[in-house]
Amino acid sequence: MKTLIKNGTIVTAGDTYKGDILINGEVIQTIGKDLDVEGAEVIDATGMYLMPGGVDAHTHLEMPFMGSTASDDFYTGQRGAAFGGTTTHIDFALMPQGGTLKQGIQNWHEKAKGKTVIDYGFHGALTSPSPEAIQEIPSLVEEGVTSLKIFLAYKGVFMVSDEEFYKALEKARDAGMLVMTHAENGDAIAEIMKKLLDEGKTEPRYHLDAHPAILEAEATGRAVSLAGQTGAPLYVVHVSCEDAAKQIEMGRNKGFKIMGETCTQYMHIFEDDMKVPGHEGAKWACSPAVRTPKDAEYLYRSLQNSTLQVVSTDHAVFWYEGGKDGRQGGKELGKGDFTKIPNGIPGIEDRLYINWDAMVNTGKITENRFVALMSTNPAKIFGLYPKKGTIAVGSDADIVFFDPKKEHTVSASTHHCNIDYNAYEGRKVKGMPVKTMLRGKLIVDNGKFLGEKGSGQFLRRKTNNPVL
Amino acid sequence: MKTLIKNGTIVTAGDTYKGDILINGEVIQTIGKDLDVEGAEVIDATGMYLMPGGVDAHTHLEMPFMGSTASDDFYTGQRGAAFGGTTTHIDFALMPQGGTLKQGIQNWHEKAKGKTVIDYGFHGALTSPSPEAIQEIPSLVEEGVTSLKIFLAYKGVFMVSDEEFYKALEKARDAGMLVMTHAENGDAIAEIMKKLLDEGKTEPRYHLDAHPAILEAEATGRAVSLAGQTGAPLYVVHVSCEDAAKQIEMGRNKGFKIMGETCTQYMHIFEDDMKVPGHEGAKWACSPAVRTPKDAEYLYRSLQNSTLQVVSTDHAVFWYEGGKDGRQGGKELGKGDFTKIPNGIPGIEDRLYINWDAMVNTGKITENRFVALMSTNPAKIFGLYPKKGTIAVGSDADIVFFDPKKEHTVSASTHHCNIDYNAYEGRKVKGMPVKTMLRGKLIVDNGKFLGEKGSGQFLRRKTNNPVL
Amino acid sequence: MKTLIKNGTIVTAGDTYKGDILINGEVIQTIGKDLDVEGAEVIDATGMYLMPGGVDAHTHLEMPFMGSTASDDFYTGQRGAAFGGTTTHIDFALMPQGGTLKQGIQNWHEKAKGKTVIDYGFHGALTSPSPEAIQEIPSLVEEGVTSLKIFLAYKGVFMVSDEEFYKALEKARDAGMLVMTHAENGDAIAEIMKKLLDEGKTEPRYHLDAHPAILEAEATGRAVSLAGQTGAPLYVVHVSCEDAAKQIEMGRNKGFKIMGETCTQYMHIFEDDMKVPGHEGAKWACSPAVRTPKDAEYLYRSLQNSTLQVVSTDHAVFWYEGGKDGRQGGKELGKGDFTKIPNGIPGIEDRLYINWDAMVNTGKITENRFVALMSTNPAKIFGLYPKKGTIAVGSDADIVFFDPKKEHTVSASTHHCNIDYNAYEGRKVKGMPVKTMLRGKLIVDNGKFLGEKGSGQFLRRKTNNPVL
Amino acid sequence: MKTLIKNGTIVTAGDTYKGDILINGEVIQTIGKDLDVEGAEVIDATGMYLMPGGVDAHTHLEMPFMGSTASDDFYTGQRGAAFGGTTTHIDFALMPQGGTLKQGIQNWHEKAKGKTVIDYGFHGALTSPSPEAIQEIPSLVEEGVTSLKIFLAYKGVFMVSDEEFYKALEKARDAGMLVMTHAENGDAIAEIMKKLLDEGKTEPRYHLDAHPAILEAEATGRAVSLAGQTGAPLYVVHVSCEDAAKQIEMGRNKGFKIMGETCTQYMHIFEDDMKVPGHEGAKWACSPAVRTPKDAEYLYRSLQNSTLQVVSTDHAVFWYEGGKDGRQGGKELGKGDFTKIPNGIPGIEDRLYINWDAMVNTGKITENRFVALMSTNPAKIFGLYPKKGTIAVGSDADIVFFDPKKEHTVSASTHHCNIDYNAYEGRKVKGMPVKTMLRGKLIVDNGKFLGEKGSGQFLRRKTNNPVL
Repeated sequence: MKTLIKNGTIVTAGDTYKGDILINGEVIQTIGKDLDVEGAEVIDATGMYLMPGGVDAHTHLEMPFMGSTASDDFYTGQRGAAFGGTTTHIDFALMPQGGTLKQGIQNWHEKAKGKTVIDYGFHGALTSPSPEAIQEIPSLVEEGVTSLKIFLAYKGVFMVSDEEFYKALEKARDAGMLVMTHAENGDAIAEIMKKLLDEGKTEPRYHLDAHPAILEAEATGRAVSLAGQTGAPLYVVHVSCEDAAKQIEMGRNKGFKIMGETCTQYMHIFEDDMKVPGHEGAKWACSPAVRTPKDAEYLYRSLQNSTLQVVSTDHAVFWYEGGKDGRQGGKELGKGDFTKIPNGIPGIEDRLYINWDAMVNTGKITENRFVALMSTNPAKIFGLYPKKGTIAVGSDADIVFFDPKKEHTVSASTHHCNIDYNAYEGRKVKGMPVKTMLRGKLIVDNGKFLGEKGSGQFLRRKTNNPVL
Repeated sequence: MKTLIKNGTIVTAGDTYKGDILINGEVIQTIGKDLDVEGAEVIDATGMYLMPGGVDAHTHLEMPFMGSTASDDFYTGQRGAAFGGTTTHIDFALMPQGGTLKQGIQNWHEKAKGKTVIDYGFHGALTSPSPEAIQEIPSLVEEGVTSLKIFLAYKGVFMVSDEEFYKALEKARDAGMLVMTHAENGDAIAEIMKKLLDEGKTEPRYHLDAHPAILEAEATGRAVSLAGQTGAPLYVVHVSCEDAAKQIEMGRNKGFKIMGETCTQYMHIFEDDMKVPGHEGAKWACSPAVRTPKDAEYLYRSLQNSTLQVVSTDHAVFWYEGGKDGRQGGKELGKGDFTKIPNGIPGIEDRLYINWDAMVNTGKITENRFVALMSTNPAKIFGLYPKKGTIAVGSDADIVFFDPKKEHTVSASTHHCNIDYNAYEGRKVKGMPVKTMLRGKLIVDNGKFLGEKGSGQFLRRKTNNPVL
Repeated sequence: MKTLIKNGTIVTAGDTYKGDILINGEVIQTIGKDLDVEGAEVIDATGMYLMPGGVDAHTHLEMPFMGSTASDDFYTGQRGAAFGGTTTHIDFALMPQGGTLKQGIQNWHEKAKGKTVIDYGFHGALTSPSPEAIQEIPSLVEEGVTSLKIFLAYKGVFMVSDEEFYKALEKARDAGMLVMTHAENGDAIAEIMKKLLDEGKTEPRYHLDAHPAILEAEATGRAVSLAGQTGAPLYVVHVSCEDAAKQIEMGRNKGFKIMGETCTQYMHIFEDDMKVPGHEGAKWACSPAVRTPKDAEYLYRSLQNSTLQVVSTDHAVFWYEGGKDGRQGGKELGKGDFTKIPNGIPGIEDRLYINWDAMVNTGKITENRFVALMSTNPAKIFGLYPKKGTIAVGSDADIVFFDPKKEHTVSASTHHCNIDYNAYEGRKVKGMPVKTMLRGKLIVDNGKFLGEKGSGQFLRRKTNNPVL
Repeated sequence: MKTLIKNGTIVTAGDTYKGDILINGEVIQTIGKDLDVEGAEVIDATGMYLMPGGVDAHTHLEMPFMGSTASDDFYTGQRGAAFGGTTTHIDFALMPQGGTLKQGIQNWHEKAKGKTVIDYGFHGALTSPSPEAIQEIPSLVEEGVTSLKIFLAYKGVFMVSDEEFYKALEKARDAGMLVMTHAENGDAIAEIMKKLLDEGKTEPRYHLDAHPAILEAEATGRAVSLAGQTGAPLYVVHVSCEDAAKQIEMGRNKGFKIMGETCTQYMHIFEDDMKVPGHEGAKWACSPAVRTPKDAEYLYRSLQNSTLQVVSTDHAVFWYEGGKDGRQGGKELGKGDFTKIPNGIPGIEDRLYINWDAMVNTGKITENRFVALMSTNPAKIFGLYPKKGTIAVGSDADIVFFDPKKEHTVSASTHHCNIDYNAYEGRKVKGMPVKTMLRGKLIVDNGKFLGEKGSGQFLRRKTNNPVL
């Protein structure tokens, strides 16, 4: 079956130009001027930017965490993603405590089975770093999993020692894999939390005190140094602040192979948002914590200057009002004890339009760099390229029809994720995805969901990917 | 007339993929899998990388300078460029002393007339900064000239005051133009030169003492600050050293609109090369001076980290043994007085293969970033994109057929520029342009020059180009 | 005549200890435990800190400037200084336009004659930088003047070119003298001023827009680089902001011989103070302009970290309501045109108590570092040590009796300078000088002035002083 | 008993001046011009600098370590110190594994008993960081021990976790104590060591590979961040390289209470010295490892700029040829396995003359800053001031007679420590201590040792000392 998209403006990481796209089955066959193909179904894209489908490199669907489970499963979360123009995501497959990395992968395949509507891959997550688990790292490659997250945070839960981190870096390096790290000093955070609770400081706002920027910067510098020493490439997840970004900058300027991402929330939600009275602030409890507008400015520059290469979401959603009406427990679990608020924030659906409006409409980031940040770079870094991440001959026909003139007011009342609040409630944006195509088929068309449960495919990823 | 390039690997700033390219007349019409077009001339590109033709943003053909004139005119220089895979360059049109900017443009059109074999544009050069000349700046746009070079160096010749620089930045900003600057402290350099000559230090190696890195870093910091204050975008030419690159980095991290280029020589020729006995070192006399391997390493990182966006050549060639056999005066003019050595170094022909070998073969820079640095970025920054700078539907069919396996030993005995030495003499490289196509016509084919004198076109450039 | 100060706590740049001080004539003869000297006049200093008399390295008494003359002459200004515990200052002897440096010195001797009540020296000021004036620099040494101020600011008035600055650095270096510089980019400031006035922005607050921090940082970096290149020592006057301090830090970390001072006002008066309605803000018009509390924090750290070595005042006072009642023109001259506000701020009297309260009482700076900043360092840097700047055997008996418990509310109604406003009006401080001794004689005693007009001595200063 | 030192030049952290010193018993009673005291023994100090006795803040006498014990005990080591002009040192009292901090102190008192010839204090060392030990920290104050060393290095031996470090910082802060840290990443070093040995890399030079600068910088940054977060003051011991010094600089510029020392060896012994063939390099095996001359230059600037405040020695001596002739095992223990070389280097005797020659004679450091680094600063930081660390009325009469003209060639054949090699063998220096006075008594006089065993006193130290 052939589909011909006519009259759009194609935007890739490198180029912006007018062209028609001919899709044959699932793949882009031809791009040309005034293409005319007999028998092809024609979709008119006049006035549209045609961008490669978003690749969200950092999500947590149906994740068991802090005594509950994220409310978006592989169906609701992926459906939200599709509405937002994202056609690929990579989810973290947490290994079971005391189990193996492969069991983590297996468990995640179970979660995904029959529910998927966009394509997806898995990162491993070394949450139980026994010597055996470290030995097991290279075998993930056979599973099509070529990246591995390691936590320097969440003491007593996921946190590893420097020894384990160092060994894992070496193992991953030798296997052509990429280590990702959550960089906060878990030891210090645990001490601060105890002290705050001892002092009766239990409201959500104290989450900020427990996650100061200096402890993120410290762990980032440590991870950068250890990676630099081993020669392993490193990808720092959810960089939230200037001081942490500078640690990456310093590492790159030493010639270390360091990359990093930030997430939408760190450029839009700030400390003051958490300091509201009552429990409302719990909505924004994520780790690292949200920071200041000054930090956000530095993040924009870091994205522009290639200190950071990717914008993802860390989508991990917990009901604001959970534990009733059939809902699992949510943010209310942390009433009276901020350390019990399930950490996480929604964003898989909002990523493209929120950031386009804040980056491209303001002139901070070109449309090409935007595509690189949202799709091409994560596809390249995580071994999905050129199947994913671009609009080019031979690539999957994952295409977002993005209407730069369409205005929208973000709201939980209209979003599609399974969550009772939206992190960007009430924001007005200009520029919206209006159609989303996955491998040649429209899965969203002007507000209508056309995807079929189970049609999303698992993506086996390559090793030895470039350092951008 | 249609041409079909089959079986190549297309490399752009964003993408690497296999595809066939159909050219209709001068322009790329279609890119596709297994294209088959009746009546089209077919060129097989098996094993080739197909990259957009090089854009050299910094050249000085037939430039009158320091008592002589550069020996490459628009024919010999452009022919050399074509052999090296460069299909576009932007030359500096120096205004005559006491004249107008437009007279500079006019003079350069005269030089080019009838000789050109690749496409070209002009930068203005504010070498005689009267109030009238500063007023004249915006009118360059009508000439298709949207960038303007301003010298903080060459005291008594081209150098401007900070007042003139500041005013020019404001004028250019308001006209959507881009200021480029040669950043060295001309005042201090003049003092040092006098002192060195007074001390009888006349050999070429003292050129290094007269151009210390700290004076480039100073002027770079000054230009960055003044541009930042005005809000004007700025492009620093020929950044040679770590300290200057860091000034750009600091400016970008403050949110200023700063960009920069380095040139091939600063990554391959070093202070020790100039410190040879006799006059030999004069070959490498250029300003800023060559630096150290440590600086070169920082430049690679700056190109990778987007502190710098472009690699150009500053191609300005003077005979090593001039003033005889019908040659104009050359480097020998500076025997006994290094300050009289005509400054400049060849490179327009060597840029792609020298840098490919040093950057891509070593894994320092991806092939996509290489294309960005050599072609796409200068095309975008200087308002030539998307006509130039990429392989995309609708763009000029300026295509380099680059054989990544072909080995070559660089030599003046085989190069094509009109100059009796090669800056990279004896280097072995792997990866060479073997065919060069300009607007759909091969102008170089396996060592044979097919271009026609006068066929190169002047390029009128756009204003308000992106800051990368 | 002998005087014995008993029971005080002696505080020097290095030490804090209890001891009695025996003064013989003008000089400290002995320091000891429980001294008992027949015939000596005894002064009890129980509860007092005994510190060396303040050395204010940066003052402008009776300076003709911007169409008026500073209202404090050598009598009123020095008397104010004495009340504040300062027993030595170094004033800037401006050369007359078109005249010689020595004429400047001569003129300043005239101003001082018969009026002085504390000791004093002169800095030269190269305000008219002809080649002859540059040649003249070393001859200042014969006058006992071993430092020279050079302006990169005040275009069209005092500003020099980089060439002149560079030559002067070399001359001064060879003569063992120290160059001081006012680092702001005068060219850019002149342009901004014109533009602001063109836009009708004439109120005092626009002085801030005309003097942005980036233009101070630029000129500081430039001065640091040029000094570094020549190997000359450099002292940057009135550093006001973090970005400028960092330039000094970078220079010192490169091994350049750079020092710097800040002034009281930059740690206590901020942009918001100038943004008040009406003409009130004119009181704080000085160059560089006042900055932000964040800058002040960095200045404290720079003083602690030895990036800066001295706190001085830049005391240059103009009536807030001048031009009437026999007063010369003052701040009112700039009504309707902020560029005509005579620049300057009072402080010679307030320096010790304002800074003690802000630095020592808060624990930011030890009492020893305080003495270094206020007295010992300027004495050493400017060649007055060990005659001035310490309490040690053989030094002049210039001693402040400082009562750390005495509280005071600063006010123009009680200060002793000839000026109708106080920059620190209304501040409450703890810790005040209660007696001031100059060369063995009390010149202030508990609010009573005992000095005799003409008793202050001119200080011939040494060359080749240390870089601290 | 009274002693009068006449005609010397007194040098303190703040001052240089001529004066006579009258000592009454153990204490300085009077400093004056031309003192004449009946009955006093007169020592002529013509031509001498009189400096406060050196305070070596970092020594390890008779330390059990790596299967042996340091060969200098409290007699031989202190005697060496005395010859070198050091009259006070602070030794690290290691707690026994599984024991208490106080037992460590007790054990060290045992070692010292009856042997001491100069004064001394103890630092605690948290080498076995149980919860009980952390609780015990404040009680050290009762022992007169107000500083505590914590190791981020020596995995499996002394190393603590970040949690333990953080808790100890808080405990120490609340008790007014100072935490000192050995900052290297012990986890990573252990991994590298294993790998090197696996690869058969066993010679002493591989000690360098096992202790790269980046792992010192990492741990320094971590310690700085954690201290900054707690608000506790921190003192980083033996800073060896530019990257670590910069971490301290960054911390200080953030307003954290960070100080640091370097040791003589890091400015004089370099990587190339360890890379000699055979086992010779074992002499220089210390941790952190020796670095490069470029690092040393940065250390000089850091000492000048107050990034670092102290020069100490880390004196820990092991025979080069031990295990025979009654000697304990020494450097030969590491033949065939560099990880078994007892770490340490001599220096307690050499500190003053080696550094005077390298710092003061070259003009890098003033004589006053030299005294601060060698004596006054450690005395203040560690709570010994003003009893120790200066020449002032009321202070102990610990005085070095330093002859700035005396030349000496350093050699193990003439030094006085109990060790068969000298780290600075063969160096010629100018400037030597010729007499050393402790509490009013000469203990060394022109090469003759006059001290009495057991006469050195234990120094109880103060809490809440200043951050310099």
